[in-house]
Amino acid sequence: MGIAISLPRLKSHIEALSRFGRNPDGQGITRSCWSPAHEAARAWLLGKMTEAGLGTRVDPAGNTFGRLGGEGPTVMTGSHIDTVPQGGPLDGALGVLAGLECLQTVKAAGLRTRLPLTVAAWSDEEGRYGSLFGSRVFAGKLAREAIPGLQAADGERLVDAMARAGFNAADAWKARCDPATLTAYVELHIEQGPHLEAARIPIGVVEGIVGIRRDRLTFIGEPDHAGTTPMARRKDAFLGAADYALRSREHIVRKGSGRSVTNFGRIELFPGVSNIVPARAVLLQEMRELDAKILARLHRECLALARGVARRRGLRVEVTTLSATEPAACAPHVLAAVERASRKLRLKTRRMPSGAGHDAQNLASITQAGMVFIPSKGGRSHRPDEMSDWKAIERGANVLLHTLLDLAG
Amino acid sequence: MGIAISLPRLKSHIEALSRFGRNPDGQGITRSCWSPAHEAARAWLLGKMTEAGLGTRVDPAGNTFGRLGGEGPTVMTGSHIDTVPQGGPLDGALGVLAGLECLQTVKAAGLRTRLPLTVAAWSDEEGRYGSLFGSRVFAGKLAREAIPGLQAADGERLVDAMARAGFNAADAWKARCDPATLTAYVELHIEQGPHLEAARIPIGVVEGIVGIRRDRLTFIGEPDHAGTTPMARRKDAFLGAADYALRSREHIVRKGSGRSVTNFGRIELFPGVSNIVPARAVLLQEMRELDAKILARLHRECLALARGVARRRGLRVEVTTLSATEPAACAPHVLAAVERASRKLRLKTRRMPSGAGHDAQNLASITQAGMVFIPSKGGRSHRPDEMSDWKAIERGANVLLHTLLDLAG
Repeated sequence: MGIAISLPRLKSHIEALSRFGRNPDGQGITRSCWSPAHEAARAWLLGKMTEAGLGTRVDPAGNTFGRLGGEGPTVMTGSHIDTVPQGGPLDGALGVLAGLECLQTVKAAGLRTRLPLTVAAWSDEEGRYGSLFGSRVFAGKLAREAIPGLQAADGERLVDAMARAGFNAADAWKARCDPATLTAYVELHIEQGPHLEAARIPIGVVEGIVGIRRDRLTFIGEPDHAGTTPMARRKDAFLGAADYALRSREHIVRKGSGRSVTNFGRIELFPGVSNIVPARAVLLQEMRELDAKILARLHRECLALARGVARRRGLRVEVTTLSATEPAACAPHVLAAVERASRKLRLKTRRMPSGAGHDAQNLASITQAGMVFIPSKGGRSHRPDEMSDWKAIERGANVLLHTLLDLAG
Repeated sequence: MGIAISLPRLKSHIEALSRFGRNPDGQGITRSCWSPAHEAARAWLLGKMTEAGLGTRVDPAGNTFGRLGGEGPTVMTGSHIDTVPQGGPLDGALGVLAGLECLQTVKAAGLRTRLPLTVAAWSDEEGRYGSLFGSRVFAGKLAREAIPGLQAADGERLVDAMARAGFNAADAWKARCDPATLTAYVELHIEQGPHLEAARIPIGVVEGIVGIRRDRLTFIGEPDHAGTTPMARRKDAFLGAADYALRSREHIVRKGSGRSVTNFGRIELFPGVSNIVPARAVLLQEMRELDAKILARLHRECLALARGVARRRGLRVEVTTLSATEPAACAPHVLAAVERASRKLRLKTRRMPSGAGHDAQNLASITQAGMVFIPSKGGRSHRPDEMSDWKAIERGANVLLHTLLDLAG
């Protein structure tokens, strides 16, 4: 349908960006935000934006923007250029480079949109120092006082990482935007799941992004001798945690929305030796759901379940909620624009939730936001073999292009 | 009747020995074999043996002996003077000091037994460097070639620990005894469990010592994204391990001897992060049972159970047996002597298994061996508040005295 992106150019950009932080052993790409590889990638990106004829800007939180057009509230797209350790070439990179490709295509075609267009690369989406850092600051959802205390799991402080990259963390809060400068936000991303591929649907229209609860449950029993204490007298914290995990998983599958998920990624036993009954089991649970009410109910019900299991087994249980993000609904106005663009390109769509967190959830709190998914091969992501067909990438970038043109009038 | 041990003297010895390795913070006693505290306690013990009129000897494995009487195969008693970290004052110490008290009482009374009497303190019963080390070497059950490779969980080598205490580990194998020099072995020990106290029985007559199997079970699944992978598609290694642990525990309780026990003291998940489905769960299982056939059957059935759970959940499971000791039956001849001695002292007895490992299990392979238990307060052991009534200690030591006199004729 008339205007279209250049797949060869987009492919060459994706391949070029994937060389920053590529691990020498072939084990994927490690490009944490603020690292030398990330900063080199940022410089490369700024060069490509300038080549494309965009005005560039880096804000105090390290968010990197390329802008096309004059005054007025902008229609924005984007994603991130940081990766998880040993990640793949598309998570984040696709959204930034497809956004750049769209703006470059519009510019090269000499089209003038009613509203300006902006492509953003948000800082530290993967959250080495703080989950969705750049978009959180931009959306005014991270308190100024909280920023100096942020640090990585290995203890490295955000302040030091930013300083090495030439940024002053004390100024990061200034990246907070005025919502009046925005009209809409739409982000292109790989699905990171198997649904689109399995259903052979090229375009996923994201209705919303799941909310996530992370809890630490500590079951507390008695450290008895594992040889001499009769089985019936033991207060085994591990068996309590195991019992709870199996029941909680069933409860969330049966009583959730049908798309509710949970995971127990970590458990630690104390004292942790073969011949002593575990006196303490520390279990990490995560649950995700698109509907805020269902998520709150499941969370409440699982806590009651944990208390019931503990009581029946003569244990105590202590629960600490480590983090809680609310589900973010996408804007019907943006969903409709994505569906119109897909119809124009004769591409089938399916509405779906996003099971992973994305910068779009922060943008959703300050503007009309939406997301477009393309199929992931084998549903794989956050690993070296993360990939999508080039055809699928081309389709997704063209849907993004027509959505941006629709929204920017 | 008639002859009896001196409780004040035994009590003063128990209190004196408990000062070697007492932790300054009051958190029990830490007296690992070969440590400075242990070597000081050994020197003190040798002094007390000499004071009591016994002939003393330390063998190349560090086993310490006090002997009363002339030629001929000896009737032996003993236990150990090492402790677990933050242990209590009775585990091991009671058997050594009550043995010393018995021989001292016999000597002081001018009694002459037909066979000589010996009290032994076996090296490293708690197994910092190697489980039941001294008695294992003495019984010829530890290969000469295996000794140089022994090391503690923290990496400290036995060779170095022995050298610092003035021993040459290369000579330790020479401690192997000639079984013809022994007639019988009987060991007094705290129960370390709740049965005697609950039943108000002063004397436990140990029928045998449980065999122990230690296995490492590794359940193997897939490291999927914990947000985007549908629940039904996950291959969760942790839930497999949890399911197995609960079923295995039920199986051993229902299909075991009624005294069979099992414990899962440790589990580790990989990659071990909140938002990735556990791809690997490494579970440590221990099972104990007095009957060798039942133990072998339970072990076999649990492996089949693990494979069944793994198959149903789309996982694999790998099992490594880390250690396997066979149950040791006590000699009816020694049990009968303990029961005769108890009847003489009008003390009720109960036959029972030992759920913990003891030096007596090694002696059982080279001579007629048995054990006497006294009640443990609250069933507690391996902790600072491990204790027994002084009355109970006196009863146990007198049963030991009359058992030794019976066996030595």
